[in-house]
Amino acid sequence: MTRIAYFGPEGTFTEQAARSLAADGDELVPFETIPLALSAVRKGETDAACVPVENSVEGVVPATLDTLAEGEPLIAFAEALLPVHFSVLTRPGTTEIRTVASHPHALAQVRLWVEANLPGARSVATSSTAAAAVAVQRGDFDAAVTAPVAVQHYPLEVRATEVADVRDARTRFLLVRRPRQPLPEPTGADRTSIVAAAANRTGALAELLTELAGRGINLTRLDARPARGNFGEYRFFIDFEGHVAEPRIGDALTALRRRCRNVRFLGSHPRADGVRATIAESAGNEDFVDAADWVAAVRRGEQA
Amino acid sequence: MTRIAYFGPEGTFTEQAARSLAADGDELVPFETIPLALSAVRKGETDAACVPVENSVEGVVPATLDTLAEGEPLIAFAEALLPVHFSVLTRPGTTEIRTVASHPHALAQVRLWVEANLPGARSVATSSTAAAAVAVQRGDFDAAVTAPVAVQHYPLEVRATEVADVRDARTRFLLVRRPRQPLPEPTGADRTSIVAAAANRTGALAELLTELAGRGINLTRLDARPARGNFGEYRFFIDFEGHVAEPRIGDALTALRRRCRNVRFLGSHPRADGVRATIAESAGNEDFVDAADWVAAVRRGEQA
Repeated sequence: MTRIAYFGPEGTFTEQAARSLAADGDELVPFETIPLALSAVRKGETDAACVPVENSVEGVVPATLDTLAEGEPLIAFAEALLPVHFSVLTRPGTTEIRTVASHPHALAQVRLWVEANLPGARSVATSSTAAAAVAVQRGDFDAAVTAPVAVQHYPLEVRATEVADVRDARTRFLLVRRPRQPLPEPTGADRTSIVAAAANRTGALAELLTELAGRGINLTRLDARPARGNFGEYRFFIDFEGHVAEPRIGDALTALRRRCRNVRFLGSHPRADGVRATIAESAGNEDFVDAADWVAAVRRGEQA
Repeated sequence: MTRIAYFGPEGTFTEQAARSLAADGDELVPFETIPLALSAVRKGETDAACVPVENSVEGVVPATLDTLAEGEPLIAFAEALLPVHFSVLTRPGTTEIRTVASHPHALAQVRLWVEANLPGARSVATSSTAAAAVAVQRGDFDAAVTAPVAVQHYPLEVRATEVADVRDARTRFLLVRRPRQPLPEPTGADRTSIVAAAANRTGALAELLTELAGRGINLTRLDARPARGNFGEYRFFIDFEGHVAEPRIGDALTALRRRCRNVRFLGSHPRADGVRATIAESAGNEDFVDAADWVAAVRRGEQA
């Protein structure tokens, strides 16, 4: 049995993601913040941790990126992609909804729905979507806007499901563990993540990206985050198609490591959306293998 | 007199930034959301709008970037950099603090301070730092964590100032207006911002950045944001040193425009931190002018 830390409380989207990634019999343990969930797996209190990494509307989750970039290394070995739509929960028998509670981010994503379906209702901010369910259960407010999984934890009634102003919003979650364990096998539809602290000089980032572009490797995300809360120094979080076990990706990582000692591998794992890597002409794994074989043969004096 | 829309309510950090950027006699008008504040200046209801653009701890402000990238163009003509530290306000005469209210982002940034200075106090989320002040005034909670400017709006007592767990956190704000007005003069310490929707093919971003790097232009920020809430398509928000009036920057923007029809100019204005642009050898304005003069002379048959 595996213990999986997650960014709680119970009844949030992250719990839902952790459940979708867990095997039967795994134990899910909620932690109050993202750094605490990641700290639990670093210390060996749990075997893995599930944390959100990016949302297609809100952008990246700074606490996850910053915590993965510093301290003991952790490696992402799986990901989940959850549609962001909400359920609206009330106490059983509620007839009139005058107050709607949720986390401010959730309220922002259902504002139009609330205006159209609960005209006149007042929106009240709570510290999480699950905290809104607790407050409704307690009788503080009439309705809670929550993750679909919340109804499994609180004795509330579902009044609406799949509520969301933006139809295609999704959040991506990572399952991370300590290094010195085998990586997941390459599938042809993988994602590799790194973080690099490029030298603070003109063109440093362009050079890193050109190493990837020159090998026909497609980026899937790039974020520049100030290091240590300071605008002057940046870290680059780069996700791209492919798996470090592939020759073409290994070749690219070797070049990045040479240019940039301060690079950290954050994982290679199958993509949740199953999108297969685009491989450019003369940038396939066999091309890299053939080219290396040819240089080896030239060195042996066997080819020219 | 100028009317300046800002992301309100009254008593927030954005009001404080707008005040620091406003001239005597300017009228400040709060709007409920960032899109509404930007819409007011687009429609001509106000002359300018003040909105947050990035925070050194939390990262960029998605609503600002997305709203500037779409709809009628707006141009940033000034910026402000505010240290993020909070004041703690109570009703006059309050002796015991059992509840501390604020926006969840603010609560996250003062958690250690609250634990150390108000042990046992419960943190309660409100929809903004100013809403916390209103709730404390009403008697709902004991203390509010607010922007320093809030005490000018609410009859509350200052119990602590300069409260912040991270010492050097700062937020940058933009003052934007409609185009077809003169740009601010170059000062040698300027920032230029663009947003580009690069073609969805391998190496597109590396090519754009190489155009800047090849001209010795230093990036100050880069963000990739999914367009229309979809992970598949990205927009790149790029800030760099320099002013579009300079030959070296004009040359770079010409190349970016050629590579990428879908590029939008978001402004050139003095940097709030006064940091002067680093100019690489053979990438100064006079180098660009000399080179263009030489080609013109060659074309006239006067030089070789």
